[in-house]
Amino acid sequence: MARWTTGFDFGLGLGARVRTSPYFDATVQAGVTHFTVYNHMLLPLGYGDPKAEYRRLTETAAVWDVAAQRQIELAGPDAAPLAQLLATRDIGRMSIGQGKYVPMCDHHGRLVNDPLLLRAAEDAYWFSIADNDVLLWARAVAYERGCDVEVTELDVAPLAVQGPRAEDVVAALLGEAVRKVGFFRFQAFSVDEIQMLVGRSGWSKQGGFELYLLDPSRGTELWHAVMAAGASFGAGPGCPNSIERMESGLFSLRTDAPDDADPYEVGLGKWVDLDGDVEFIGRKALEEKRRIGLTRELVGLIIEGAAAPPAIRPWPAEADGKPVGTVRAAAYSPRYQRNLGIAFVDVPANEPGTVLAIDAEGERRTATVVPLPFDAQTMG
Amino acid sequence: MARWTTGFDFGLGLGARVRTSPYFDATVQAGVTHFTVYNHMLLPLGYGDPKAEYRRLTETAAVWDVAAQRQIELAGPDAAPLAQLLATRDIGRMSIGQGKYVPMCDHHGRLVNDPLLLRAAEDAYWFSIADNDVLLWARAVAYERGCDVEVTELDVAPLAVQGPRAEDVVAALLGEAVRKVGFFRFQAFSVDEIQMLVGRSGWSKQGGFELYLLDPSRGTELWHAVMAAGASFGAGPGCPNSIERMESGLFSLRTDAPDDADPYEVGLGKWVDLDGDVEFIGRKALEEKRRIGLTRELVGLIIEGAAAPPAIRPWPAEADGKPVGTVRAAAYSPRYQRNLGIAFVDVPANEPGTVLAIDAEGERRTATVVPLPFDAQTMG
Repeated sequence: MARWTTGFDFGLGLGARVRTSPYFDATVQAGVTHFTVYNHMLLPLGYGDPKAEYRRLTETAAVWDVAAQRQIELAGPDAAPLAQLLATRDIGRMSIGQGKYVPMCDHHGRLVNDPLLLRAAEDAYWFSIADNDVLLWARAVAYERGCDVEVTELDVAPLAVQGPRAEDVVAALLGEAVRKVGFFRFQAFSVDEIQMLVGRSGWSKQGGFELYLLDPSRGTELWHAVMAAGASFGAGPGCPNSIERMESGLFSLRTDAPDDADPYEVGLGKWVDLDGDVEFIGRKALEEKRRIGLTRELVGLIIEGAAAPPAIRPWPAEADGKPVGTVRAAAYSPRYQRNLGIAFVDVPANEPGTVLAIDAEGERRTATVVPLPFDAQTMG
Repeated sequence: MARWTTGFDFGLGLGARVRTSPYFDATVQAGVTHFTVYNHMLLPLGYGDPKAEYRRLTETAAVWDVAAQRQIELAGPDAAPLAQLLATRDIGRMSIGQGKYVPMCDHHGRLVNDPLLLRAAEDAYWFSIADNDVLLWARAVAYERGCDVEVTELDVAPLAVQGPRAEDVVAALLGEAVRKVGFFRFQAFSVDEIQMLVGRSGWSKQGGFELYLLDPSRGTELWHAVMAAGASFGAGPGCPNSIERMESGLFSLRTDAPDDADPYEVGLGKWVDLDGDVEFIGRKALEEKRRIGLTRELVGLIIEGAAAPPAIRPWPAEADGKPVGTVRAAAYSPRYQRNLGIAFVDVPANEPGTVLAIDAEGERRTATVVPLPFDAQTMG
């Protein structure tokens, strides 16, 4: 088996507690070697050749089993007001089929999740969630307030097609009409009577689509249909890519910051609507946080030395000999030809140019703080 | 690497999103080969020799890193009333240091979690949770009701010592006084100034203790201290054991039943206190469920044929050619010298003696329903 990282190579114990995705059999057939667990479901993390998978994503098209990105549906007369309570943005003017990236906060302004919210029907909203139990959170709020709404986790399974040729792949599969689907817009499509909602979205900046499969029994068929449509464009299996997402400045919940972080600290402040009068959970706490200003912040790092190993756990970071936070992710970037890192640090160590001493699994390294997102011009 | 099961052997991708336990370095040094992810933390599942690990648990003593069994603390003036709202049992007379197994349900009577609840102080209750985000659930209820309480996940890390010699091991480590700790009772102990709460508890029926380490920076030291104390009793590394727990009739949340199951359906009805007048979330729905009676139930299975592979996902089960539910776990039992299974089936397929046809990863097998817990006398 391909080693995940120097020094650590563990197997994954399997059992019904951790769910398999509707694409599981197809990914096994395609040679998946590594998984993680995400929303209590297996999420493929590698097919044995990380370099080829990165190239596929950035040069042709990569097909990702992201069924673990579960859909939490609010359905019923109170779906809209409940969705608004749970999101920190004004969602009052969403049309059916429209998606919005909406941070969710708790009553103290701590980030709960950062889903893509889709208005799926007049009275139905779907939160496409990162890795925690929004189902429990949304149910508790709904039931405690007596909302007239059903809160359920749908058995809908996103398959992402990402990369510069993704649109060609999806058009070959679903027809030219799919090219007209706008960013964060979703429309119904089908192939061989496999029904899906298709949106221009996905956790990369390479462009692409997510195919929300509505009937999980057809996962294997959909996977093979996408692969067949994509073959001539160089499409192949891939996974949410920890390098590309850093290069592109995409936030990773639970990876990048501790559980008590707020949206301002992790760069999501622009999706908190405090200027209007929309009411949502956490608004008061967020107003106070905005007034006080940052005490911690997510920053970029340029890490010196040979190709950095992945941070399998937060690495301690010091400035002037004092602990200032942790490095949460690290990788060698083909795009920038340097080691990039993501760190969550105390003010003022967030100042660009601050030099940090980091402990990378016992190896001491030097890193320099840069703004996020990474940008060749600000990287010096 | 040791194969986990015929046909499937996957690596685990690592990253800061999934937390390492305070015992991680020690378990790596001890030769851990497999992990799962539990409460967003790595949980060891094997050290390469399942038979030796089973024997250790049932004949001497096994040391388990169960730090992933996180502690959700309610602290403050409203801790006691909030804990009562969240638990389906009367917890009004719990003394400090006392533990109780308490199912938690949502407002519709669906099981949310089945933690061991510990009254840790006058105004502090700890839920030692199975695998989901009780933190979000408890916070939503607390904040929506305006409770005067702090709800946090503590960085407390249980280390379990389980098996017939567990008491000897723990006494060698902590002194003879620990032998007087009663079942589900917790007391403060320390060794080399490593502070912990120690309870007679754990997810096996072999007897044993859980050492709740209070300072996570001392995990490696505690692990080695326990191993040194246990060496002469044959103690060694182990993990929550999927075979022993079936033999002993212990419930596994998310493994054994779908997310919408209620406590009656999974054999936890005796821990739902409807006869008194204590108010808790879900009470009304549970009264209605009790009145209506069961429509589905968790049952035991005796599975024919050669040693059963583990059920890495629910296996379809049929009775008289009709789907009646799924098999959730399976294993060859050294204690009963048969294949055991756990299935969640519709009434009346829960009747002992019902013959099921099951699809074990493509292999058709016959199984017979027996009552839970397994018992040599009722197994025929």
